[in-house]
Amino acid sequence: MKKLNVVKVGGNIIEKEEDLQAFLDAFAALPEPKILVHGGGKLATQLAERLDIPVQMTNGRRITDAETVEVITMVYGGKVNKSIVAGLQARDCNAIGFSGADGNTILSVKRPVKDIDYGFVGDVIAVDSTMIANLLSIGITPAFCAITHDGKGQLLNTNADTIACELAIGLSEKYEVTLNYCFEKAGVLLDVNDDNSVVKDINSEKYTQLLNDKIIADGMLPKLENCFYALKGGVHQVQLGKPEMLKNTITNFTTLRL
Amino acid sequence: MKKLNVVKVGGNIIEKEEDLQAFLDAFAALPEPKILVHGGGKLATQLAERLDIPVQMTNGRRITDAETVEVITMVYGGKVNKSIVAGLQARDCNAIGFSGADGNTILSVKRPVKDIDYGFVGDVIAVDSTMIANLLSIGITPAFCAITHDGKGQLLNTNADTIACELAIGLSEKYEVTLNYCFEKAGVLLDVNDDNSVVKDINSEKYTQLLNDKIIADGMLPKLENCFYALKGGVHQVQLGKPEMLKNTITNFTTLRL
Repeated sequence: MKKLNVVKVGGNIIEKEEDLQAFLDAFAALPEPKILVHGGGKLATQLAERLDIPVQMTNGRRITDAETVEVITMVYGGKVNKSIVAGLQARDCNAIGFSGADGNTILSVKRPVKDIDYGFVGDVIAVDSTMIANLLSIGITPAFCAITHDGKGQLLNTNADTIACELAIGLSEKYEVTLNYCFEKAGVLLDVNDDNSVVKDINSEKYTQLLNDKIIADGMLPKLENCFYALKGGVHQVQLGKPEMLKNTITNFTTLRL
Repeated sequence: MKKLNVVKVGGNIIEKEEDLQAFLDAFAALPEPKILVHGGGKLATQLAERLDIPVQMTNGRRITDAETVEVITMVYGGKVNKSIVAGLQARDCNAIGFSGADGNTILSVKRPVKDIDYGFVGDVIAVDSTMIANLLSIGITPAFCAITHDGKGQLLNTNADTIACELAIGLSEKYEVTLNYCFEKAGVLLDVNDDNSVVKDINSEKYTQLLNDKIIADGMLPKLENCFYALKGGVHQVQLGKPEMLKNTITNFTTLRL
């Protein structure tokens, strides 16, 4: 089975020009086929503030009204996505930028209102892995921003970790997929302030043990839930760590398998 | 030879939601293969003003500094392009949004400084018609915004009429191309205030006569120059008029052939 890398790049890397360029170097050096996924939450917040559009967060999630989905579309789909695409082209990586609306690649439903109305936020219901595989087969590297659509003309703000996870699962029918989460930390850490305390390998048993010992810090919990959801959905392995892990020049990162 | 429609939609249509939706109806109803091209200058000016970024125009052309190219990328590549793509998907037209950086489809050079430094403005030097034909052949409808790149990581503001023209010429090797300029007027008019004064057919001879009689108004001159440049470059025919001309429900528009 052909190998495929799905790589999510974290917000703290995107917003620092130097870190973004170093990440793009590492990503472009990966053999094809590959897919990039990014968000850009902090940059969207900065633009919203400049435009006097109130930023409303609940449990770390953005409440996305009509004005906010427009800001997100400008920042994720425009500014960040196109500069990443141009940066990859400069590295001879033939990228095309995507939202889930482009090529109808990721279809979502607007999140139903329960206790909280998140507004124009999408929950993924379908990935068109055939379309994406067709593009990969002609040498294209898709670069996805964290936007999907409902198929009826509405763009929807969608968590970038979730998009990476759903793409990785959807493409596991056709490829042996490694899902990579690149961020500013070295991986899952026993001590959140010590990059040398990386837990290098986590399987289901180790995961349960880490949960029981309350080793996994708050922010890492949903990320690891995503990782095991991906593994159970057919993804071969998940890697968490700094962008250098893509180049195999470091061994200090976390690998997750079932 | 297979037929292809390249359709440029004008700024006055894009900025009115109702007109945009009516245009998308007409465009989506065209048989495949087809390509859409759009700008969004007035919407970019509105955002620049909200962000207190000075708008500098010379001879109707935007001086594009670093901040302005970012605004243009957010508006053309984000807000306008993604809403057009989502609108086409809602009409079962499988669109993917493109800048010239995406798929390295349109390569430009930054315009050399002579009397005026236009800043980050691109003059098109190459269209990858093979890549675009590959995408068309798998049922994709590319929707291009008025942005290209220099292949070295820099995005460049590029006139949308020119992009439509260069795409039409580039694809004329492989298709019988009709290039359509949709705008708020009915076509080339003998009386600029009377939509019933359309000149229905213009060939080289008629064009020279109209020029000599000074019938063609200022704003129409560069557009018609573009049209004849396209025809001389191998484009089968050019049509100018309201979006309804795409549906063949009106006959009141201008057709140009050599």
